[in-house]
Amino acid sequence: MNKWMKIAYNEAVKSLNNMDGGPFGAVIVRNEEIIATGRNEVLLNNDPTAHAEVNAIRKASKILKRFDLKDCTLYTTCFPCPMCLGAIFWARIPIVYYGATEDDASHGGFDDKIFYEMIKKKNRYTILHQIDHKKNAKLFDKWNNLKNKKIY
Amino acid sequence: MNKWMKIAYNEAVKSLNNMDGGPFGAVIVRNEEIIATGRNEVLLNNDPTAHAEVNAIRKASKILKRFDLKDCTLYTTCFPCPMCLGAIFWARIPIVYYGATEDDASHGGFDDKIFYEMIKKKNRYTILHQIDHKKNAKLFDKWNNLKNKKIY
Repeated sequence: MNKWMKIAYNEAVKSLNNMDGGPFGAVIVRNEEIIATGRNEVLLNNDPTAHAEVNAIRKASKILKRFDLKDCTLYTTCFPCPMCLGAIFWARIPIVYYGATEDDASHGGFDDKIFYEMIKKKNRYTILHQIDHKKNAKLFDKWNNLKNKKIY
Repeated sequence: MNKWMKIAYNEAVKSLNNMDGGPFGAVIVRNEEIIATGRNEVLLNNDPTAHAEVNAIRKASKILKRFDLKDCTLYTTCFPCPMCLGAIFWARIPIVYYGATEDDASHGGFDDKIFYEMIKKKNRYTILHQIDHKKNAKLFDKWNNLKNKKIY
């Protein structure tokens, strides 16, 4: 097993053994050094966003004191769910190595694959309703008018 | 303006005025009561996951002491990005009201729309590489063998 993936794997086993969440682990590496590990803690913390990748990204950003992880590599035991893939995109992580697939996760009862289908088929719109468009859209004009704003 | 959206809007203005992050705000409501508010704090906390919706969901879950927000409604000033939509799915929030669109966010320089395209067109795969499949897939057999496991 890849040496970094082995560390992600051990994180997943920890969550599994403690029943802290599903069997998911991750590690963020830079220059052959571990910056942060993460594991699923949804059940431990009653936090639906506490996935392995999100936890690892939050920790790494805190440690590096920047929201941009573009010089880092992420290893995760399973293909990232839409939430985690979004977090990876925002953190600008350029390379991700994953182990198991969405189908493997489905086999464990996890909805990653269903959520991807909901996004791709735009089924998501059944829960989403638009109101008060104009005033909210103008927030971005206010943003554009700010001087010295930082783009992320 | 809808009374709950107005609260989300005020959160967005706070982030804008403090330069704590982009102009995004959210509020989670249950039984005509506010459970939690959230606003973008990516710049304030150097946390790429600190979006308004994620922050609101994390707070609401902590307050309600459960990862399941299926009796809640979320109001957000802008259409949720893939990360936030994933968080909404995992939290099982059944109704979301949003104000601005992905195009409005693009106008402000935010990549929400690009990320949705990356997911839909599977461009995401250019950064994702699979290794060590078998051992990681077996984690889900271990999970399935656990007694009294909690599905989320």
